[in-house]
Amino acid sequence: MLSPRFFDYIKARQELVNKALNYYVPLLQDFSARVTEAMHYSLFAGGKRLRPILLLAAAEAVGGKPEDYLPAACALECIHTYSLIHDDLPAMDDDDLRRGRPTCHKAFDEATAILAGDGLLTLAFELLAHPDLRARVSAGRLLEVIYLVAKAAGIEGMVGGQMADLLAEGRPVSAEELDFIHQHKTASLITASVVAGGVLAGASEAQQQALKTYGKAIGRAFQIVDDLLDILGDEKIIGKPVGSDLAKGKATYPRLFGLEASKQKARELVTRALESLQLFDEKADPLRDIAHYVVERTL
Amino acid sequence: MLSPRFFDYIKARQELVNKALNYYVPLLQDFSARVTEAMHYSLFAGGKRLRPILLLAAAEAVGGKPEDYLPAACALECIHTYSLIHDDLPAMDDDDLRRGRPTCHKAFDEATAILAGDGLLTLAFELLAHPDLRARVSAGRLLEVIYLVAKAAGIEGMVGGQMADLLAEGRPVSAEELDFIHQHKTASLITASVVAGGVLAGASEAQQQALKTYGKAIGRAFQIVDDLLDILGDEKIIGKPVGSDLAKGKATYPRLFGLEASKQKARELVTRALESLQLFDEKADPLRDIAHYVVERTL
Repeated sequence: MLSPRFFDYIKARQELVNKALNYYVPLLQDFSARVTEAMHYSLFAGGKRLRPILLLAAAEAVGGKPEDYLPAACALECIHTYSLIHDDLPAMDDDDLRRGRPTCHKAFDEATAILAGDGLLTLAFELLAHPDLRARVSAGRLLEVIYLVAKAAGIEGMVGGQMADLLAEGRPVSAEELDFIHQHKTASLITASVVAGGVLAGASEAQQQALKTYGKAIGRAFQIVDDLLDILGDEKIIGKPVGSDLAKGKATYPRLFGLEASKQKARELVTRALESLQLFDEKADPLRDIAHYVVERTL
Repeated sequence: MLSPRFFDYIKARQELVNKALNYYVPLLQDFSARVTEAMHYSLFAGGKRLRPILLLAAAEAVGGKPEDYLPAACALECIHTYSLIHDDLPAMDDDDLRRGRPTCHKAFDEATAILAGDGLLTLAFELLAHPDLRARVSAGRLLEVIYLVAKAAGIEGMVGGQMADLLAEGRPVSAEELDFIHQHKTASLITASVVAGGVLAGASEAQQQALKTYGKAIGRAFQIVDDLLDILGDEKIIGKPVGSDLAKGKATYPRLFGLEASKQKARELVTRALESLQLFDEKADPLRDIAHYVVERTL
C-alpha cells in the first residue's frame, strides 16, 4: 500500500534530521570529549528518526516548513536516544545489543553511558530553547512545546512507563497495567512529537486535539507492533535476538491477548489514527502514510 | 561576621523552597509511584537549598519578589538533586552515604535511582515552562533561562564536569584540568542559578554580567571549600566519611596546591564576588552574606 514516494519522503527527512543532528550535537574536544563521543555513537546507530519525522510531518500538515523546526526535531531524537541508552543499562533491561551493535555501556562503559543519556536529555531542552528556533517560532509556542515534551518524557510519561515496566517484569500484569506501560513508555513521546510539530507551526485547538488523537493511536500501535516483531521478527531487522522480551518475562500485548487479537488491535488503532486526520488536507498525507507504515512493517 | 538576621533569612527561604518543592514535585499514586518516592527521598534529604536560594536572592537584588519565581527555584534544586543521585551510583562515584543517609540507589535500587534522576532532570524543565511561572514572567525571559540552565547542566557544564572528574580519578591532574572540572561540575550550575534569578526579574545586561562574575567566583570558592571540608571537616557536618575524596584519588584543589593556598584562594574568590556586586544596592545584601557564608562554613 505504501508508495515509493513515501520511502523517498522518509529518506529525505532522515537525511535532513541526520544533518541537523550532526550540526546541533557537538563533538567536544576538551576533557569531557568522551561523553560526546558516546552521545554520537548512540545517536548515529541507525535509528529511523520516527519522532523527528513525525514532528516535521505534523508541522507540514498545518502548513509549516520542516526546515524551520529542525532543532526541535533533533531534541526529540535526543530524548528518544537517551531513553534507549538508560533502558539498556545493566541495572535496567541489561541489553548488550541495540540495532545489531553493542549498546552504549558495552561500547564505552556504564558511567559514560549514564552521562551520555543525561547529556542528551539536557541537550534536548537546550535545543528547544535554541536561538535558531527562537528566530522562527514565538516564545509562547516554544514554552508550550517545552512543557508538553517535558511532561511526556518525565514521570507522567516515559520515565513513569519505564518504572512501571521494570516493576511488572516476571509476573502477570493486568490489561490496565499493560495499557499504562504502553501509554507512558512509548505512546506519550510519540504523541508529544506530533502535537509539538503542530504547536510549532501554529495549529488551532481543534487541529492540536486531532494530532493528539492521531499520536496516541499510532503510539499504541507502534508498541504493539514492536511486541509482535519480538515474536515474529527477523533478528536482522529488529537488531536484537527474537524473543528477548518473552525471555525476560516482559509484559507485552501479544502475551496478554494473543497474536491475532494484537494484529487486529494494531489495525484498529491505525484506522482511528487516519480518521482523526479528516480535518486536514493533503498536506497531512505524510502523517497518513506513516500510520500505514507503523503496522505494515510487520503485518 | 554573619548576623543572626542572615540565618533567619536562610531559614525563611529554605521553608519557602521546601514548601514549593512539596507542591511542585508530585507523589504519584499509580504504577510508577516508586520513582516519585525515590525523587522525594533524595529531594528531602536535608539539602541546604543553596541554588534555589541563590536564584531567589539574585531576583531580589534586581527588585523581584521571590514568591514569583518558585517553580524556577525548584527546578534548580531538582537538577542539583538529580546530579547527586547519578553521581552516587555504583558505576560513578559509588557512594553509600549522602548527608548521613543511604544514597538513593541504596535506599531503593539502582534502576529506580537512575529513573529518579532522569525524572528530576526532566521535571526541572517542565517547571521552567510551568504555567505558574508563565503567568509572572515573559515567555522570552523564560526561554533565556531554560537555555542558560540547560547549557550549565549539560555537556558544556555539569555533565561534562562529571565526565572529566571520572576520567581524572587516580592519576595526577594539571591545574588546567582541575579548573575545568571545578568550573563545569560545580560552578556552572551555581552561576546559572544566580544569572537565572537576575534574568527572571529583568536584570540589565550589566547586572547580568555582574551576577555572572559573582556566581563564577562563589561557585569556585564553594568547590574549594568542599574539598577542604573533606580534609578538615567533621563527618557529622559533611555527612560522609572525612577523607573519602582523598581515598578515591579524586583531584582536589588542596591536593594540588596545599591547604593554605586553598584557603587563600577561596578568600580571594569571595572578595572578587563581593566586588562584582558594587553596582547593586542593599537589596543584594543576601547575595553578599551568602558569599561570606560559603567560606565561613569552614575557614
